[in-house]
Parts: sequence; structure tokens; C-alpha cells
Amino acid sequence: MSALASHFQEHASVLAAVDRGLLRVAKVFDGQLQSRQEPVRRLVGHVEQYRGKMLRPMLTLVCGMAASSEGESGLTREHDVSAAVIEMVHMATLVHDDVLDEASLRRKSPTINALSGNEPAVILGDYLIASAYHLCSSLETTGPSRAVGRAAVVTASGELLQLHHRGDFSLTEAVYFEIIRGKTAELIATACELGASASGADPAVVLALREYGLEIGAAFQIQDDILDLTGDETTVGKTLGQDLSKGKITLPIIHHLASLAAVERAISLALLHEATGEGGARRVAAQLLTRIERSGSIAAAAQVAAGLISAAKTRLGVLSDSPSKAALASIANAVLTRRA
Amino acid sequence: MSALASHFQEHASVLAAVDRGLLRVAKVFDGQLQSRQEPVRRLVGHVEQYRGKMLRPMLTLVCGMAASSEGESGLTREHDVSAAVIEMVHMATLVHDDVLDEASLRRKSPTINALSGNEPAVILGDYLIASAYHLCSSLETTGPSRAVGRAAVVTASGELLQLHHRGDFSLTEAVYFEIIRGKTAELIATACELGASASGADPAVVLALREYGLEIGAAFQIQDDILDLTGDETTVGKTLGQDLSKGKITLPIIHHLASLAAVERAISLALLHEATGEGGARRVAAQLLTRIERSGSIAAAAQVAAGLISAAKTRLGVLSDSPSKAALASIANAVLTRRA
Repeated sequence: MSALASHFQEHASVLAAVDRGLLRVAKVFDGQLQSRQEPVRRLVGHVEQYRGKMLRPMLTLVCGMAASSEGESGLTREHDVSAAVIEMVHMATLVHDDVLDEASLRRKSPTINALSGNEPAVILGDYLIASAYHLCSSLETTGPSRAVGRAAVVTASGELLQLHHRGDFSLTEAVYFEIIRGKTAELIATACELGASASGADPAVVLALREYGLEIGAAFQIQDDILDLTGDETTVGKTLGQDLSKGKITLPIIHHLASLAAVERAISLALLHEATGEGGARRVAAQLLTRIERSGSIAAAAQVAAGLISAAKTRLGVLSDSPSKAALASIANAVLTRRA
Repeated sequence: MSALASHFQEHASVLAAVDRGLLRVAKVFDGQLQSRQEPVRRLVGHVEQYRGKMLRPMLTLVCGMAASSEGESGLTREHDVSAAVIEMVHMATLVHDDVLDEASLRRKSPTINALSGNEPAVILGDYLIASAYHLCSSLETTGPSRAVGRAAVVTASGELLQLHHRGDFSLTEAVYFEIIRGKTAELIATACELGASASGADPAVVLALREYGLEIGAAFQIQDDILDLTGDETTVGKTLGQDLSKGKITLPIIHHLASLAAVERAISLALLHEATGEGGARRVAAQLLTRIERSGSIAAAAQVAAGLISAAKTRLGVLSDSPSKAALASIANAVLTRRA
């Protein structure tokens, strides 16, 4: 059972349907990635250990059920394929992100780049994304391919924007939101959108669930950014403190700098300079974190995330009441309370 | 006018149609890559300088004309879009290849990784491939998306296989051919296939042109491998000697090692060890090249390429006679004589 699923145990029927659905999705996923070449099989086998929360496939399935009058019976091959495709695209971005971040740990396993080097990691990411598109174009219409293609364009744009603003201590909240909307929220929104559209839902419902996805996606990334500063590496299961050492300026830092008067701001900026870039010292990062917490900026970022979750839940108003609809509200809540 | 086009000037009507077609393809290409984000626009603008031979879009157009009874009038939006998609996928692989090869020069311009670092280069490649799929799924049917997805899977598999066999001096010809079929021939074959299928050609014709593409693609890569050993950097316009220094064992080397008796083989292997890997000395590489040439292995590799070209031209027998059919034969010949 996935970590997030544990948060909606009160919806037992939905949870059981999701568990059945995720088994089908895993079958589609594994079937697509079979290769007759041993070196390819070995790398793919390793990356399958990355599979963690399965948040995105779960959202496709639950949105699919919530948008259908038939619940679980409304789920089709299109739901399973879309869910597998989205997860495959997501894994490709994880593999490439780990190259970019020089990360050595992902979901408590060594990363592909740590294990085999950057070169196989770059190409493995390409292999995964190509496989995702190949799988998606096995569906009858071009709609899902078009949505996934667009999502991947927006995701890459968000990542490029983030790279461009590395070490930019004057990053605004507006650009931060454009970055996280691209790099995280868009794919989550597409997972929801495809679930609803595969159920043949009205355009208004498809759009509402897409917006729900954008909002929980943004909240998810804010929570991720908070955990990177304050989390426990053993619990989270990946290398933390990466954002600072890579010069990524996130919401708590933006809020912190904006909240200070000139002198205090200069002190924080000096610490930020020391903490980012090559070999940013952990000690300096800890000092900075204390200041960020003291200025209430962790709490403020958490507040922004909570506002997004609240907005996301409002979107669910377009749906008829059902256990799946209630589960979508619980998934949204779980984004805020996750510690890993 | 593209470099390869200059080889079939005797087919003036085809050349003029290709030139008109490539202008349309460039428009589709540029239209797809427009971004409202300045950092994205800047990177894309640079990568457009990579556009060189336009071999693949040209093949889509000429195959499209050759497979249609209407010649140029048989070309549709599907031809232009398919051609742009294939070129975009190709560019994505170039950008990632340059990261892998740590290359600093491509088509006489600095590479993205040399200019902006590996990180934007990895994501820019992802952006290009996502844009390619997004564009492809704007077509009416999923057929082209499916073909492009499969081609990209095979391409990445070929690259992974190549990485796995780096520094493997016992690489067989069979595995070498599997590598080049994947990393180069498959996408060229798909360019031909999509041109024919967009013209509504018979499956036998689509298949024959696909085989033609596989064969000229393999010959193209063999010629590339020969040029990497023997070419002139100023003419070719990219960093040469990369294969040896990166431990890539190519056809001339495989032939050379196989042609030698034990003692001579040991000498060549020792030089190979010195020439490959970190900081392989140019002097050693030059010494090795002399031995490879003396054993007739450059000529033997060229002979294999010539055989493939001959087979490719035989495939054209399924087509009715036309200037486009003659142009396909000339393009095949040009693969053998190119120096850049």
C-alpha cells in the first residue's frame, strides 16, 4: 500500500479499487519497459525501485472514478495506460533531476547516476520518456498524447526557468510559482485531467479536476521545499539540503528575505551566499534555517500550501458526492501532513 | 541549400520541391518551439544553429513525393509535421549526445553544454523531445506518434548498448550493427517510413522505404565512424577523435583487430588501451590510425557501407520511376562520398 493511500483508509472501497488499479497500472508499466537487451533491462530494473508514492497514477484512477457515474466499473484501459504513462514521464524527470542535482540517494536507494554514472542516467531518462510516449500513442485517440506532450513541455520549461534563476536571491514569488507550476504541478494536473477525460466527463469537470491537480501539485512542491530545509533524511529517504547547496531559492527563503529590515536582511543574504554554491557548509545552512524559522517563514510557506489545498478542495464541488470524491479531499489533505 | 542536396542537383525539380518543403518544415519547427519564457527562447535559439544537413526532413519529403503518384502535390501537412518532428527528436539526441561526449563543437558552433553547462543541456534535450511529441500528436491519427515513440525507444536502447560496451575491445560486428541500427538508422528509417505512409502508400512501399532508410542510416553511421578517425576537423565541423577517447569501438577497429595475427594484435590492443579512456594521447591515436589504415580496415569499413548503399538502392525497385525515386538513389550515393 502506498504511503499516501494510508491517509484515506476511511474510504475503504476506494482504497481497494485503487490497489486493484495500481496492480493493473504496474502490469502495463512493466510490459512497456520490457527489453530484449540485458544492459537496458538491468538499468530499468533498478529504476523501478524509484517507484514510491504512486501519487500520480492514484490521482488518475481516483479522478476517473469520481468523474464517472459508475465508480470503479467506469475505469477503462485508457485510465490504466494514462496512469502508467504519467508515472513513466515522472520517473524520467526524477532520473534526469538526480543527474542535475548530483543526488546520490532517492527513495532510500542509490540513484542511477550514483550507481552507473551520468551518461547512462541521461539516456535512461530518454528511454523512459520515449517509452511513455510510445505507450500513450497505443490509445485510440491523440488526446492523451497531446496532453502528455504539453505537460512535458511545460515541465521542462519550468526546470529551465529554475536553472536560469539558480543563485538568484532576488527571485520573486511570482517566478517561484511559475517554476513550481511547471516542474511539479503541471504533470500532477495532467494525471487528474486524463483520469476525468478517460471517463468521458464534461469539459467543466475535466477542467475542475485539472485545477485541483495544479493546486495540490503546487502545495506538494511547497511541502517538498519545506522538507528539504527542515526534514529528516532517514524519513524522507533522499539527500536533503540540496536546494540551498544548489542555489535554489524556495518559498520560505523568499518570504524570509522579504520579511526582514535592511540590516537583518544583509546578514541572511551573507549566510545565503555562504550556504549556496560549491560546498556550502552544513553549519551555515543550519544557522540560516534557525533564522528562517524564527522569522516565521516556514510557517508562512506552510500557510500558503494550506490555502492551495483549501482551494483545491473547493474545485471538487463540481462532482456528485461519492466515496471517490471524498478520497480526493483526503488526498489533498495528506499533501500537507506528509513527512516523506 | 543543404549540403546533401548539392549532391542531387541533376534532379532540379526535386531539389526545388525539397527547398520549398524545408521552408515549410522550418516554419512548423520554429512555431512549435516558441516560448513566452526568455531563458527558454535563448537556449532554443542557440540550438537552432545545430540545424545542418536536414537529411531526415529531406528524406521524409522525397520519400513522400516518391511514394505518391502526384509528386510534390502529394505532400500534405502530415509530411511537414512528421519531418519537423523527426528533426526535433534528432536535435534532442544531438544535445544529449554532446553532454555524454563532453563535446565542445557541433556544426562549427559551441555546444549547449560548452556554452551553458550540462544541466541546461539535459533539460533542453527533454524540452525538444517533449515538443516533438506534442507537435506529432497534433496530427489526426496516432500512427505517426506511435512510430516516433518506437523510434525513440530504439534509439535510446542503442545508446545504452553503446555505453555498456564502451572500452569493450572484444565488441563483435553483430553488436556494433545493433548499436548503430539503434542510435542512428532507426530514426532515419522512420523519417522515410513516415514520408511514405503520409502519402497513403501501400504497406509494401512503406516497408521498402523503411528498409532503405535503415540501410542508408547504417552506412551513414559507418561513414561517420570513419570520419571520426580520418576526417579533418575544420571540414567536419565537430570535435573528432571522440570515439577513441571515449572508448567507442567502431567498425574499422573491429575489422583491424580481427585481421591481425596474435603478436600484431597485442601491439594494437596496447595502443588502443593507451588511446582510449581519460586523456588518451593524440600521438598514440595517430600511430594506431596508421596501423588501422595499413591493415586495410578503413577501406574494408567503407566497403561495408558501400554494400549497404547498394542494397538500399535495390529497395527502390518497388517505386514507379520518377525524379524523386532517382533523387533517393542520389541521396544514398551521397552518404558514401560525404566528407562532413
